[in-house]
Amino acid sequence: MTYGTDTLLLELFAIFVWAKFFGELFEQITLPAVLGEILAGVVLGPYATKLVSPGPTVSSIAELGAIFLLFTVGLETSPKDLIRVGRQAFGVAFAGIALPFVFGFAFMHISGAPPHESTFVAAAMVATSVGITARVLADLHVLHTRVAQIILGAAVFDDILGMVLLAVVSGVASEAGVQWLQLTVVFTEAVAFALFMIFLAPRIVQRIGPGLARMSTQNAPLVLSLAICLGLSVAAEKIGLAAIIGAFFAGMAFAEYSPQWNLSPRVSAINEFLAPFFFFTMGAQLDLHLFGSRRVLLSAIAISILAVLSKVLGCGLPVLREGWPTALRVGVGMMPRGEVALIVALVGLQMKMVSSGAYAIVIFMTAATTLFAPLLMRGLFRGMAEEASPETAIAE
Amino acid sequence: MTYGTDTLLLELFAIFVWAKFFGELFEQITLPAVLGEILAGVVLGPYATKLVSPGPTVSSIAELGAIFLLFTVGLETSPKDLIRVGRQAFGVAFAGIALPFVFGFAFMHISGAPPHESTFVAAAMVATSVGITARVLADLHVLHTRVAQIILGAAVFDDILGMVLLAVVSGVASEAGVQWLQLTVVFTEAVAFALFMIFLAPRIVQRIGPGLARMSTQNAPLVLSLAICLGLSVAAEKIGLAAIIGAFFAGMAFAEYSPQWNLSPRVSAINEFLAPFFFFTMGAQLDLHLFGSRRVLLSAIAISILAVLSKVLGCGLPVLREGWPTALRVGVGMMPRGEVALIVALVGLQMKMVSSGAYAIVIFMTAATTLFAPLLMRGLFRGMAEEASPETAIAE
Repeated sequence: MTYGTDTLLLELFAIFVWAKFFGELFEQITLPAVLGEILAGVVLGPYATKLVSPGPTVSSIAELGAIFLLFTVGLETSPKDLIRVGRQAFGVAFAGIALPFVFGFAFMHISGAPPHESTFVAAAMVATSVGITARVLADLHVLHTRVAQIILGAAVFDDILGMVLLAVVSGVASEAGVQWLQLTVVFTEAVAFALFMIFLAPRIVQRIGPGLARMSTQNAPLVLSLAICLGLSVAAEKIGLAAIIGAFFAGMAFAEYSPQWNLSPRVSAINEFLAPFFFFTMGAQLDLHLFGSRRVLLSAIAISILAVLSKVLGCGLPVLREGWPTALRVGVGMMPRGEVALIVALVGLQMKMVSSGAYAIVIFMTAATTLFAPLLMRGLFRGMAEEASPETAIAE
Repeated sequence: MTYGTDTLLLELFAIFVWAKFFGELFEQITLPAVLGEILAGVVLGPYATKLVSPGPTVSSIAELGAIFLLFTVGLETSPKDLIRVGRQAFGVAFAGIALPFVFGFAFMHISGAPPHESTFVAAAMVATSVGITARVLADLHVLHTRVAQIILGAAVFDDILGMVLLAVVSGVASEAGVQWLQLTVVFTEAVAFALFMIFLAPRIVQRIGPGLARMSTQNAPLVLSLAICLGLSVAAEKIGLAAIIGAFFAGMAFAEYSPQWNLSPRVSAINEFLAPFFFFTMGAQLDLHLFGSRRVLLSAIAISILAVLSKVLGCGLPVLREGWPTALRVGVGMMPRGEVALIVALVGLQMKMVSSGAYAIVIFMTAATTLFAPLLMRGLFRGMAEEASPETAIAE
């Protein structure tokens, strides 16, 4: 009667519907949908109600989901804008990475965590969620302001630096201890890969663009971008990086041609289908009982507070001469952690470099920063939206 | 260094690139890309060069590919047009199903095949490929002609009747022998499901449409349609039909709202990503050595000739009073078999109701009809395109 897919299809259906249902509930109470999708996994997963226990095929689909998520983010990250916004955003990004990493590593180290675990937790505290930030800025109608442009530019640098850091960290952690030669090799590879993808890959895409029109395959640009996304994911793994880094850079290489080739809505559709499995699986791996341990709960709260303070300080200080309000807005705008933090934690968990306790701490920190940032931003940006509205009216 | 996906990602990359490469090669020599994608699987698969042997996860992704393929076809199948084109198309479709089934069953039965295998091969000869037909008619610029409208309407009925038939056949074959009570139950369920999906489901979608605008979830219509596609696939399996039937009807329920909600290009993108795995896997299961058997090769040629003749006769006769040229054009236009034939054969193979020899015969028949139909149609429709071109100019 059936032919082998029944359990899988039922699993996929249940996960998709529950993730989207929780997402919609969260949106209705003005919280980010991504939190709802994760919570669906927590609530329905094997550590709580046990209603849905993702099997190995779902895990593979979830990892494809992570690849398409980062591919989508890459498609919205123009390398030209990135090069143009330049130094100021880079200053904000760099200090906004250094401080959380130092604070996080120091706290975990002092708490007695092993070095590789401290490194992973610290790395997870680093990257601002460009997706969540951009969405909140758009909702507040302040996307065209100078503050928003600094935040977005920095968040983009942040993502790249965060991923280079993940590459370094996962390269390092895959060995028994910290191998400095290995570190140098991985770091050099990561930087060379990043530089190639930022400066050369978009030009290569530009060269092959006209040739695509001569191809007979329907949707040739989409097909090519999907092939390159899969290919660079494999390539990134081969040179010792995470697959998602390849997917991100693949997206960025196509970012300039994404509107012309109408790539974004179509890649987003694939992401729309696959990403919920990623977030749900992420939540399903969170053992809520861990927070029963006072030690884990206190660490989670401490790490969350450090994540907020270090980001606000690190990102605010480089723009302090533009006044306190700007510094505070930039700092808070850079606060939310999202996909990248969760991916770093998941990579660490899968490499057995991070304990389930430390994984829970990162999920808690991501949830806390993602939850509070939009609330704080609403207050801080309220005046700006009103100031800016006449400009918007003229521009329209 | 890696985190569990390396082999899978490499497999996915290789399959995607090779399938699309062969597809592009075929398009360049003006053959349907789908044949190239299947051939990639044949050539690179475990029975030939052994370069790529799809694992279980790839098979699951391939089955998702079949679901999205039929969902896409469903989205382009308007239930209103279907009801409107009405009787004439139904006559063409019905005779065009009955004759191939009777011819196919009789030949296989006389050849000494067991009844369930004869039934599956006959069922695989039934359904015209609406995708291939529509593509060829569009390429010839005759989509607006009366003949094309009859062909498309009939091809759509064909798909539905073919799927009801698949439901009946797979329902029957899942038991040790032919169970007539079981047959009646499955047939009643299939017809009730089809009638519900054609007449009631689109109205339900129409009712919930305005509500979607109030949802906060991004791309709410896309998300809803994906959820319903997965849900109806599961539901179809639960009542004893194949999952793809549910996916097809899910698509049809949304067909009227597909332009308004911009569903087609986005669902097509998901299909664009997943379908190559389906066609490649299909090819990879074809053991070329089977054609070394003279018996299988002769049967394949005989079945192909019967498939052509029965379709041209069955579809041509009901419109014979409109003249020989029209009857011949309709008959040849209905000739290509495609996805549905391959799916029927695959379902049969997976249920162990069809031997690998009979599977090879169906693949051969699909390839032969898909190959010859566009060549014949080009000749038969040439005059029409010229006659019709002034109309087109006025209409534009």
